[in-house]
Amino acid sequence: MVADLGDVNVNLYNLQDSCRLIHEAYQKIVAAGCVPLTLGGDHTITYPILQAMAKKHGPVGLLHVDAHTDTADKALGEKIYHGTPFRRCVEEKLLDCKRVVQIGIRGSSTTVDPYRYSRNQGFRVVLAEDCWMKSLVPLMAEVRQQMGGKPMYISFDIDGLDPAYAPGTGTPEIAGLTPSQALEIIRGCQGLNVVGCDLVEVSPPYDPFGNTALLAANLLFEMLCVLPKVRVV
Amino acid sequence: MVADLGDVNVNLYNLQDSCRLIHEAYQKIVAAGCVPLTLGGDHTITYPILQAMAKKHGPVGLLHVDAHTDTADKALGEKIYHGTPFRRCVEEKLLDCKRVVQIGIRGSSTTVDPYRYSRNQGFRVVLAEDCWMKSLVPLMAEVRQQMGGKPMYISFDIDGLDPAYAPGTGTPEIAGLTPSQALEIIRGCQGLNVVGCDLVEVSPPYDPFGNTALLAANLLFEMLCVLPKVRVV
Amino acid sequence: MVADLGDVNVNLYNLQDSCRLIHEAYQKIVAAGCVPLTLGGDHTITYPILQAMAKKHGPVGLLHVDAHTDTADKALGEKIYHGTPFRRCVEEKLLDCKRVVQIGIRGSSTTVDPYRYSRNQGFRVVLAEDCWMKSLVPLMAEVRQQMGGKPMYISFDIDGLDPAYAPGTGTPEIAGLTPSQALEIIRGCQGLNVVGCDLVEVSPPYDPFGNTALLAANLLFEMLCVLPKVRVV
Amino acid sequence: MVADLGDVNVNLYNLQDSCRLIHEAYQKIVAAGCVPLTLGGDHTITYPILQAMAKKHGPVGLLHVDAHTDTADKALGEKIYHGTPFRRCVEEKLLDCKRVVQIGIRGSSTTVDPYRYSRNQGFRVVLAEDCWMKSLVPLMAEVRQQMGGKPMYISFDIDGLDPAYAPGTGTPEIAGLTPSQALEIIRGCQGLNVVGCDLVEVSPPYDPFGNTALLAANLLFEMLCVLPKVRVV
Amino acid sequence: MVADLGDVNVNLYNLQDSCRLIHEAYQKIVAAGCVPLTLGGDHTITYPILQAMAKKHGPVGLLHVDAHTDTADKALGEKIYHGTPFRRCVEEKLLDCKRVVQIGIRGSSTTVDPYRYSRNQGFRVVLAEDCWMKSLVPLMAEVRQQMGGKPMYISFDIDGLDPAYAPGTGTPEIAGLTPSQALEIIRGCQGLNVVGCDLVEVSPPYDPFGNTALLAANLLFEMLCVLPKVRVV
Amino acid sequence: MVADLGDVNVNLYNLQDSCRLIHEAYQKIVAAGCVPLTLGGDHTITYPILQAMAKKHGPVGLLHVDAHTDTADKALGEKIYHGTPFRRCVEEKLLDCKRVVQIGIRGSSTTVDPYRYSRNQGFRVVLAEDCWMKSLVPLMAEVRQQMGGKPMYISFDIDGLDPAYAPGTGTPEIAGLTPSQALEIIRGCQGLNVVGCDLVEVSPPYDPFGNTALLAANLLFEMLCVLPKVRVV
Repeated sequence: MVADLGDVNVNLYNLQDSCRLIHEAYQKIVAAGCVPLTLGGDHTITYPILQAMAKKHGPVGLLHVDAHTDTADKALGEKIYHGTPFRRCVEEKLLDCKRVVQIGIRGSSTTVDPYRYSRNQGFRVVLAEDCWMKSLVPLMAEVRQQMGGKPMYISFDIDGLDPAYAPGTGTPEIAGLTPSQALEIIRGCQGLNVVGCDLVEVSPPYDPFGNTALLAANLLFEMLCVLPKVRVV
Repeated sequence: MVADLGDVNVNLYNLQDSCRLIHEAYQKIVAAGCVPLTLGGDHTITYPILQAMAKKHGPVGLLHVDAHTDTADKALGEKIYHGTPFRRCVEEKLLDCKRVVQIGIRGSSTTVDPYRYSRNQGFRVVLAEDCWMKSLVPLMAEVRQQMGGKPMYISFDIDGLDPAYAPGTGTPEIAGLTPSQALEIIRGCQGLNVVGCDLVEVSPPYDPFGNTALLAANLLFEMLCVLPKVRVV
Repeated sequence: MVADLGDVNVNLYNLQDSCRLIHEAYQKIVAAGCVPLTLGGDHTITYPILQAMAKKHGPVGLLHVDAHTDTADKALGEKIYHGTPFRRCVEEKLLDCKRVVQIGIRGSSTTVDPYRYSRNQGFRVVLAEDCWMKSLVPLMAEVRQQMGGKPMYISFDIDGLDPAYAPGTGTPEIAGLTPSQALEIIRGCQGLNVVGCDLVEVSPPYDPFGNTALLAANLLFEMLCVLPKVRVV
Repeated sequence: MVADLGDVNVNLYNLQDSCRLIHEAYQKIVAAGCVPLTLGGDHTITYPILQAMAKKHGPVGLLHVDAHTDTADKALGEKIYHGTPFRRCVEEKLLDCKRVVQIGIRGSSTTVDPYRYSRNQGFRVVLAEDCWMKSLVPLMAEVRQQMGGKPMYISFDIDGLDPAYAPGTGTPEIAGLTPSQALEIIRGCQGLNVVGCDLVEVSPPYDPFGNTALLAANLLFEMLCVLPKVRVV
Repeated sequence: MVADLGDVNVNLYNLQDSCRLIHEAYQKIVAAGCVPLTLGGDHTITYPILQAMAKKHGPVGLLHVDAHTDTADKALGEKIYHGTPFRRCVEEKLLDCKRVVQIGIRGSSTTVDPYRYSRNQGFRVVLAEDCWMKSLVPLMAEVRQQMGGKPMYISFDIDGLDPAYAPGTGTPEIAGLTPSQALEIIRGCQGLNVVGCDLVEVSPPYDPFGNTALLAANLLFEMLCVLPKVRVV
Repeated sequence: MVADLGDVNVNLYNLQDSCRLIHEAYQKIVAAGCVPLTLGGDHTITYPILQAMAKKHGPVGLLHVDAHTDTADKALGEKIYHGTPFRRCVEEKLLDCKRVVQIGIRGSSTTVDPYRYSRNQGFRVVLAEDCWMKSLVPLMAEVRQQMGGKPMYISFDIDGLDPAYAPGTGTPEIAGLTPSQALEIIRGCQGLNVVGCDLVEVSPPYDPFGNTALLAANLLFEMLCVLPKVRVV
């Protein structure tokens, strides 16, 4: 269905105001009974979307594919940027933390346990190295059980994939997931109670030959195929 | 051996006439006892080549590596283009349909079973997702048995491989085969009765750094290594 | 105005049929009183467009910016391709040959006078080397006088410009025009009786960073600014 | 000389706070008697720098090379971004408007006179089209007279140059200045009372082969060569 | 620790003299008790480094990741270039040949057994095809046993990896190792007596988007993490 | 004519030996009465070629297009590399110094007069800035007079052109010559006693889109067009 929503505007020069605008727009989208599928832009966008989600559904489960946990507290004094959305979501109780899974996490770090925050909230952190050269079908069977029939959101950062497949992104990390694993993850969500999903961090200036965009478009198509039928409110 | 063949011309602005010219040229090549190894250009070329093959050998087996089955009926009203060669071959009885294997097939589709035509002819369709993260040595053992000692042709579309390895092609599809699987497929043909082979759909404008060409050249070299000794007629 | 025209289709695999389709579509466009501004694709397109133009207006004047005269007779036995449109137009008396100007012509050649055909028809051929490091404002004053108030068509091949500015094209030639000269040419048409115009031969695969497209879009915008007011028939 | 200044920090996620930080840092730089040569980053940076300049020197003259006047009022409701710095400077009386020259201005527009604001302030606006195919030595003789011996600032946006020379920037405009004209402009400032200068809008993601960076580095080197001897306070 | 070493110079126009200079510089580095981690440049550099290593430690073990064995005798009459370093090392008895492992070796060849020289010296040659689609953790367990507690050197040629991951190198070979396998190899050296290591053959002109450099930087970081604590002499 | 010359080999790993091999090969070429047109590779190659030229013709005139004078004494202790060929030629009296013209010279420098060596030998140094926005036809009239009917050599370094036209080279310098000026220079040699010519410093790794190669090929074609008729010895 297509709801009568008015435009979704952002304020290119003010992140906080953009978040407010996105939050308001998604409240209308969700109120109209839609399951939004969002294309980023950077990962900041998931924060105001999840505000709208939780207002409707209560705390949601989260399937989060990414090279990074995106749970920093702040950077340069700012609490809102693409490295912090899921900490903000935790603080505002938008997530059902026992049903949060982060897949593809990796990268060098200056602390001994860079994933402690995630684990302390009860998130399941699946490192990229635990995915290397493996089918993720068994992992997704466990994820399906964990999510149950309750509302869940899919947030897919393209940098979860290896830079050989997705060079067009701002913070590539080596030794990531493959496109076939990405398809296993998304197809593994068939039948779950998906209330929204996004695909973020594709950056055209780093993608002059367009293959990252092609890959992202395919992943979005696959997401569309696993969305549940929508009942209009 | 090098046969005295005259030039092989094509007509850049008329696909049907090009097919006629290629067909005629390959008849001479085959008549001279050669096993032709052809570099495309697009996949249309395999149609007139197989016309010449079948005239000499009768219907041939086919090992076809590709992201697409290339068995469409027509596009824009035209029956000859790079999406239809194998349907034309079936209609003209150029193929021994019980010995046709298509490997690496994938891609989104607007129909429920996009591979029905292939299967209805008796082709074996090996989807890319059945190849993910697996050695193809066992598959090739089955293919060898299926082909037996009878004449067979190898047609290798570079888009059978994942775009990370082969970006330089016109219709890339995500989550494809790897170069190591490509080598397993070609090396698995050692000893078979290969009467011809081609490597098609490398597109230099999409390959500015030349690595798709490098990959294709290696695959052609490997094909040369599995060709049988030729007896001059 | 926007006329009710139906779709303009082309047949990607058959140039002659494409020309027929384009001719038919442009007849409707012109009959509706529109001044068409066309984006190529290759230069073949100008031939069926001028067929439609001449049916309405009689033989038209032509301001043709290009590295090549595009007056070959045939190639590979074919009479219709991107190197022949203006010879076809002459043969069909679509052009008012005394009002044809070709600007930016250059390139190495295997004949002593490669521009003889153009000159024999009465075309004015302005070589690129006669434009080097010069303002084209004086040339355009002469062109304006030559065109008078009678119907004329502008056909702009992006390869008229130097490849430093427009790398994204299929047959680049060194030492071409500059963007400022292109603007002088187009702006010099203000007030003329322009009945149609096109911008052709931009090729995205050769233009990964998009600056050729940017340049072409600007030239099209400038063309729009010099079109006369259209009276609906 | 090298002053003891402490770090110059910016806040990547908050433009207004970044401006405050830059303003403070440049006050210290200027107070130390330095003539700052700044590398952007986007053109926003010139606004807080000129705040610091004017605090020390009073309203300064400005030699501004750019495709755009950067005198918009706001965008998306925000008053601070890379399109507004010089309007903000005018409002805060940081500029000696009778000694402001903008060179290289061009680009399509939706208003009849997009440069009215600049002219109303008394700026001299030198359009790119008035520079085409001309030496700028005579223009710079006039600029030198206009600037006199009073403090002036040079702000050089790389998009003042044609995209053939400087593709690596965010808002390229066709038909711009050439590198030789850029050198004529900078060398024409020898002996003037230059109190600071910047080179902005080089964007590495759009510059994969690095020639925009090479060009910018050369322009900065040339700026260094025209800076006056600094007396330490 | 940072030793007081003086500059390490090379002579860009004379390979033999460069080797002498590198040898002398590394003798000082090693004498100071450092474990050098070197960034190439081409693989020639490993030869003079191992001269310095063996002078201090006696013949060393070698973990060598590469597409090529680099054991040619000469090319164009020259004994020193990037294809010969390990033959030179053998001749000068710098290597403990029973503890040399070469991983990732592959590529077409004009001789039946291109790896005979390596095997004749007692090297273990692990072909890329023996690594395809496998974890290398078991291989590294064997390597650890083979190396024991005695001094060993790691030499990592980036072309050991597949060109999809590392296009930025001079002699790419298809069907190579993956970044995850590279990490398994390096991490598998934890606790070994590593006396030096290098990462060579990254070539920026072939790496315009920088992802080969990113990969190499990560591999160097991982190498740093497995270096033993250094005791200053 | 095509002389029976044997191969021209170089030694990739030894510049001095390469120079010896090139010198010997060109002696045979010249002895056979040929006028050699050479494609580099780097500018070192002109030194051994001019050795062969002078052995046949005595000291020759030189038309040298370049961003750099290439008259350094040595680098890194080596006397032979791409920055020194013309000093070596002077020392060996291969040049008729009163008939040497260097055009396009530019670039930042650490000395007050970087062209003193050239001028001290009697070379005419034409700076790029003296060519900006000017036709070089008048300059070439003077050059023709200076060269007279005596033997002369043309050495064209592609970096004489601006990097916008010729990015594919190792030491680009901003604000260089244009392709139209290059054509004026070469065409200005028509009728002179040209005994050889070269086009050097095209570097494919820096030229992924091939337009530098296209430009170079055109310049070589133009050189061919101005070569005198050769009389076989």
